[in-house]
Amino acid sequence: MKLGNSGKNFVKSLTLFVQFYIIGKDNGWRSRIVGSRGISRAVIGRLPRYYRYLGELNEAGVERISSNDLSKRMHVTASQIRQDLNNFGGFGQQGYGYNVKYLRTEIGKILGLDQSHNMVIIGAGNLGQALANYASFEKNGFILQGIFDVNPQLRGKTIRDVPVRMMDELELFLQEREIEIAALTLPKSKAIEVSDTLVRNGIKAIWNFAHTDLNLPKDVIVESVHLSDSLMKLSYNIMRHKEGHGE
Amino acid sequence: MKLGNSGKNFVKSLTLFVQFYIIGKDNGWRSRIVGSRGISRAVIGRLPRYYRYLGELNEAGVERISSNDLSKRMHVTASQIRQDLNNFGGFGQQGYGYNVKYLRTEIGKILGLDQSHNMVIIGAGNLGQALANYASFEKNGFILQGIFDVNPQLRGKTIRDVPVRMMDELELFLQEREIEIAALTLPKSKAIEVSDTLVRNGIKAIWNFAHTDLNLPKDVIVESVHLSDSLMKLSYNIMRHKEGHGE
Repeated sequence: MKLGNSGKNFVKSLTLFVQFYIIGKDNGWRSRIVGSRGISRAVIGRLPRYYRYLGELNEAGVERISSNDLSKRMHVTASQIRQDLNNFGGFGQQGYGYNVKYLRTEIGKILGLDQSHNMVIIGAGNLGQALANYASFEKNGFILQGIFDVNPQLRGKTIRDVPVRMMDELELFLQEREIEIAALTLPKSKAIEVSDTLVRNGIKAIWNFAHTDLNLPKDVIVESVHLSDSLMKLSYNIMRHKEGHGE
Repeated sequence: MKLGNSGKNFVKSLTLFVQFYIIGKDNGWRSRIVGSRGISRAVIGRLPRYYRYLGELNEAGVERISSNDLSKRMHVTASQIRQDLNNFGGFGQQGYGYNVKYLRTEIGKILGLDQSHNMVIIGAGNLGQALANYASFEKNGFILQGIFDVNPQLRGKTIRDVPVRMMDELELFLQEREIEIAALTLPKSKAIEVSDTLVRNGIKAIWNFAHTDLNLPKDVIVESVHLSDSLMKLSYNIMRHKEGHGE
């Protein structure tokens, strides 16, 4: 939908108004640090990206960064950065910028990366093996405990010292250990049945790569990565670009 | 941030007001079918999901569906479905619901799936091989033309009849063929250099799986899949759930 400049400004003013209204309603907003409630999905969606950039800065030996410099690197506005981080209490001092290591640690805590999460991968095909090989997950507390598949040819194969087990061992395995997360890297046709088994045996969170949405009990957390959805968005943007209206 | 009911209603009214304001400004909105402009990212982000569900309905032999029934299946409100589809002219007749096959075809056109897109994969590790093996991409017009890697042990290996080529053949390959999309499934340390080579040789769109953002010329379309960002969102929701505030 097209808006003239006056229309855009009007919407902007309204948005600001709504924001101030919300902030005004919530008197305790500055005191909430970690474990904060009701943060919008959009803000949460951006936190891993902050975490990633702060990690790169930390590796490069940068100790302190202003929201302006961070904004240039991340291609978002400095005011968005300040607003996002204010949701958690701010972390920065006016004029001094952010302490990179501290901010990264705090965002890591918000994301639960200071705790360890036991994980299994269901489906040891290429995608499952790719996930199993990401050593960086382990650094962030995601500990691979098991990999399962139905293919007997994969029995005994190990990936980063974790052996591939057969699916008929899954239930007992889950009952004997505390596993929190299951990554589902198997065909859509199996995903629904397997996810029911997982939930019945105590899995609390599913990282779903199967080409379908899972309808599970409300207390099971599902984060889906639909690769073909992402490819279609790319294709949409190619089309728009050809029309001369690229994003 | 917490809002009381009155606060929520206030925000809702304002949102509605903004929506009607926008719709009112745009007199031509009902006539735009395909090739429509200025559709919000959020709507575009949902189109692949509609396409997926309509595909499932089509496979199941369903010819017609009401927005209410579609809404129950997709766990979104019927009014959101109607609003989303109205962006493209509607597709439905009051009381008759949507023609599944027609709607799917039209959404496919909007997403550019009625055209073919030549694609290469850079990085023939597990993830690259996983992508190369998704036959369903081909059905939607994404044609795998080449796979490249630096690992000489992969030379000559074929995936769905496409041979793995060495990286030093990449530039000539791109110059001789019309390739639109490159999927980057290689380590972060190589991604930036390789993406520059791709763009220099005519690649217009990058499907980026490397653990870094790419800063490319504005006319290059980048769609990133940051797997660890997704895992961190999962972990955030686990934390929130433990606190008793799961989404």
